[in-house]
Amino acid sequence: MTNPQSNTTLKILAEKLGLSKGTISKALKDSHEISVATKNKVITAARELNYVPNHFASGLKSRKSNTIAVIVPEIVDSFFSLAIKGIEAETQKKGFHINIYLTNDEKAKEEEIIKVISDGRVDGILISICSETNSNDHLQKLIDYNIPLVFFDRAAEKIETGKVVTDDFQAGYIASNHLIAQGCKKVCFLSISESLSILQKRTEGFVQALLENNIKNPERNIFQISTEKAKCVKTIKLLLTDPENRPDGIVISVELLTIPIYNACKELNISMPGDLKVVCFSNLPYADLLSPSLSTITQPAFEIGKQAAGLLCNRIEKGTDIRFEKIICPSRLDIRGSSHH
Amino acid sequence: MTNPQSNTTLKILAEKLGLSKGTISKALKDSHEISVATKNKVITAARELNYVPNHFASGLKSRKSNTIAVIVPEIVDSFFSLAIKGIEAETQKKGFHINIYLTNDEKAKEEEIIKVISDGRVDGILISICSETNSNDHLQKLIDYNIPLVFFDRAAEKIETGKVVTDDFQAGYIASNHLIAQGCKKVCFLSISESLSILQKRTEGFVQALLENNIKNPERNIFQISTEKAKCVKTIKLLLTDPENRPDGIVISVELLTIPIYNACKELNISMPGDLKVVCFSNLPYADLLSPSLSTITQPAFEIGKQAAGLLCNRIEKGTDIRFEKIICPSRLDIRGSSHH
Repeated sequence: MTNPQSNTTLKILAEKLGLSKGTISKALKDSHEISVATKNKVITAARELNYVPNHFASGLKSRKSNTIAVIVPEIVDSFFSLAIKGIEAETQKKGFHINIYLTNDEKAKEEEIIKVISDGRVDGILISICSETNSNDHLQKLIDYNIPLVFFDRAAEKIETGKVVTDDFQAGYIASNHLIAQGCKKVCFLSISESLSILQKRTEGFVQALLENNIKNPERNIFQISTEKAKCVKTIKLLLTDPENRPDGIVISVELLTIPIYNACKELNISMPGDLKVVCFSNLPYADLLSPSLSTITQPAFEIGKQAAGLLCNRIEKGTDIRFEKIICPSRLDIRGSSHH
Repeated sequence: MTNPQSNTTLKILAEKLGLSKGTISKALKDSHEISVATKNKVITAARELNYVPNHFASGLKSRKSNTIAVIVPEIVDSFFSLAIKGIEAETQKKGFHINIYLTNDEKAKEEEIIKVISDGRVDGILISICSETNSNDHLQKLIDYNIPLVFFDRAAEKIETGKVVTDDFQAGYIASNHLIAQGCKKVCFLSISESLSILQKRTEGFVQALLENNIKNPERNIFQISTEKAKCVKTIKLLLTDPENRPDGIVISVELLTIPIYNACKELNISMPGDLKVVCFSNLPYADLLSPSLSTITQPAFEIGKQAAGLLCNRIEKGTDIRFEKIICPSRLDIRGSSHH
């Protein structure tokens, strides 16, 4: 991470800002002699020039704001709220504050948030990307500008930085196999995005399980559901009443489809687990108390958050090279009443 | 909100910062001629001197960061996550970003967060205070420094600024009356704090309902439960197995006690609603799907967030005097299986 152009850049910065090279050097080393305002000015300009200060390379402490941004699609979701608990547990220990930003799963909002917080107000970023993300230029820019970044759960595969995820392929495979083992003949998979890599992997696990059980054309059993409430309910009801294709087993790949499925079953008088068996990717603390209780792929949400925060803190405080770090925290299947008599 | 000392303060600021009075005046008016760094320096110094810029008084737009801080005790709670949705709906319309900060219901953390964000990085603050809050000096300071502040749900009564709350007394009264009407002879009230004003009011509503039904010493039926998991479960089990005082009706004043109550009933073989009837203050989207479904005092969480954000935006953008604004959004009782056959 050293930069051969350091000295040249230092000179350019000095000229651009009308400050001495000494002042700039001190500002970049977070010296107490330099005012916060000047430091911010220097760091912002340095980032614009894609300058890598030496103290990053040499592993010196480089905190400025003691603040870490956590960007998530949603907080009305037990995975994200629990992952944030894990992030907090780790960052609090290390003396960082966290700021939470919501993208509402919209790419434009994700880009805007990243633009706003790239001004030096945070020391690093933890992000779970939105499902709309196809181009990742805004994320690559953070790397180019040397802003510490770690992905948790929903990662942009091609960006070279730390990632903490679960074993999504394996989890999709286990959930689907479980339903087949319970006697389901027609297992479907409900997703909300074809581009999000974690959902792609869960889908691949589903496909693999069906193929291994000699079920042909498993792709036909994959449904993309809109997250817009009215559309979502409509699609689910159509699926559950389709005379040709009515499923007797469903893998729900995102928690937010749980309530629509339960409500549709009530309304259509479909008994769970008799007529329909269900497993959902969910960390819902109420899974045990639902009627019937909900079988889940339980993700290690707290652990994922904690590990991701740990990577980021090492990057910020010690300059650790995390470009190729990938931590996989395995999920587990919790069998409950919705898939088992 | 005009400040008779404006001119004097302008002079002091100019001397202190080594800038001209014109520059300071422009910085305080958010002029494009002045750099962000200088503006921040001026505004920080102005706040230290408790200086009220004229553009606040004259109602000019005074945005600096386009960012609003939202401080909440917790996000693993359906009330707060829904209130944040309401805040987002309103702030997004007005072009503000929101930053969410968690206090984990700890006063020291609340104080620290407020200290960190009082540096001008946000244009205003929406807060639901933690239950530990007894002294409110840190909040009064925000008012003294002219930082726009609005309380939602959990308010510090004595601080003169906008408050958006629900009718907690009435809600506590209705919930308790409902259980008595269902035939409960021994109704208890579970709380987690004696100092938090919303819980005090819910408790007063409970007391009023019992007194009106000629139940003596209702105070004896109020229990303070620890939020620490092991202690919480222990106290609830003791209460539900007490041979002398076993309740046949419980008003749960905070959502986080729901799971421990349901689990204790399962474990102790107490049938709901047969042996025990329960109403909980909760916005849980899963209330309908629990076994039995959960009767709730449903708070207008989204509306509370939206109204609070509206007040704050008016204060920031138009300088509206919100010192004595109080908006009360009423809650409603949703009767379900946990309190009714």
